[in-house]
Amino acid sequence: MIQLVMAEGKKLILVTNDDGVHSPGLKALLESMEEVGEAVAVAPDRERSAVSHALTLHRPLRVERLKENVYSVNGTPTDCVAIGAQKLLPRKPDLIVSGINRGANLGDDVTYSGTVSAAIEGTIMGISSLAFSLMLDFPSGGSGPRHYETAGKYAGLLASFVLKNGLPYDTLLNVNVPNSPQKDVKGVRFTRQSKRIYDGSIQETMSPWGELCYWIGGGTPIWERGPDTDMDTVMGGYVSVTPIHLDFTNSAAIEWLENRWNGAG
Amino acid sequence: MIQLVMAEGKKLILVTNDDGVHSPGLKALLESMEEVGEAVAVAPDRERSAVSHALTLHRPLRVERLKENVYSVNGTPTDCVAIGAQKLLPRKPDLIVSGINRGANLGDDVTYSGTVSAAIEGTIMGISSLAFSLMLDFPSGGSGPRHYETAGKYAGLLASFVLKNGLPYDTLLNVNVPNSPQKDVKGVRFTRQSKRIYDGSIQETMSPWGELCYWIGGGTPIWERGPDTDMDTVMGGYVSVTPIHLDFTNSAAIEWLENRWNGAG
Repeated sequence: MIQLVMAEGKKLILVTNDDGVHSPGLKALLESMEEVGEAVAVAPDRERSAVSHALTLHRPLRVERLKENVYSVNGTPTDCVAIGAQKLLPRKPDLIVSGINRGANLGDDVTYSGTVSAAIEGTIMGISSLAFSLMLDFPSGGSGPRHYETAGKYAGLLASFVLKNGLPYDTLLNVNVPNSPQKDVKGVRFTRQSKRIYDGSIQETMSPWGELCYWIGGGTPIWERGPDTDMDTVMGGYVSVTPIHLDFTNSAAIEWLENRWNGAG
Repeated sequence: MIQLVMAEGKKLILVTNDDGVHSPGLKALLESMEEVGEAVAVAPDRERSAVSHALTLHRPLRVERLKENVYSVNGTPTDCVAIGAQKLLPRKPDLIVSGINRGANLGDDVTYSGTVSAAIEGTIMGISSLAFSLMLDFPSGGSGPRHYETAGKYAGLLASFVLKNGLPYDTLLNVNVPNSPQKDVKGVRFTRQSKRIYDGSIQETMSPWGELCYWIGGGTPIWERGPDTDMDTVMGGYVSVTPIHLDFTNSAAIEWLENRWNGAG
């Protein structure tokens, strides 16, 4: 069923996202990856933002081939990675890239993000994976041009870097790029995850039948920042690259807990 | 709108899950928490397994009050925590508990699990949070009685422990309980996350219209285990308690990356 002809010796790259197969960020990322290797996009048929690491288990998934190297799946980004890597591509890919997301994925956002979750799924499969996001509200304030080409350029550099060097065990890269022309980006910095502080933005709204309903969203999150965080780095005009480890164990906490538990009897 | 009368000095506990408001695991957890403090359940109206940390942003959410202290929300576990803690409860809860999940949440499962994601949302809000799961296929092999009462007992012990001692910063507890009568459980152990190795279970199926479709699921995952892991601990007949840290930064990887990036020019 798959008629992809692989160029000799070229690296195979699976491209996905959570904004959907028709989004400009996917197009920019695919074009960038086509310069690095043999790139195949397998992406959701429509926007799947904030779906996090959701996996569709309750129904079969349909795949549509839109171009020679572009597939659409009626599922989540995680579904796309699973089906793409295991069923659609001619072999296990050398690299999985996700994005370029329309908007940043900083700090605790990584736990909600479909973009990052696609890279988590790739990492679980043992494939080097990177997530790319464009920070639309900086420096442009959300309006004006969207510099996907800048993010695409850095995606190419980082993909080549990872194909050459690999990645530390069980670790993906979460990349956030300022929304600027490439000449205004100051470079690449490796950062730690910042932390979003409790936000509390839920609006109340009435249904047509007079029921009180709740709509989550809006508000202005507060961030626990620092010069070495993803947030400050991208706000400073750099590309932020955060290595994310899939072993979430707080090892230091184990002894803390044991001492208190045993003390508690 | 909220007429909860809070008992003087009692701790306020928000209870949620991802199996839905009518599941036996939620009932067992609520009953257990009613012995620890003032417990209010805010849970999805139907099963929301494997929804991960998904947040519903594209539509308002409806809340139905089923009993004095039980609310149903037509959203995800993360939605339930946000709306419960910020809108339905009379004040910010002292503790958030999620479960008791019908089935284990071990190793990388935590990235998919709605049960664990509810505890992630609570932790992001700065509230001590615990996730509870019953390992149905051990030791009973998935059939036979389901010992939610055992998990409920340990949930009560651990909730009291956390209310007394607090938790390390930005850290939740992921608790897995063997499916045994309480007398057969050997005790509590604090563990690290195991790792699921690439599984590869996707079935092919035909639609009624002759299209090839893919259905994710089935298969037998392989685990990277060890005596101090969640998996081995619960298989050994103990309650496994893994502290999960929400700062996912692989700090050691930052220098690794910087050295290679700078070397690469």
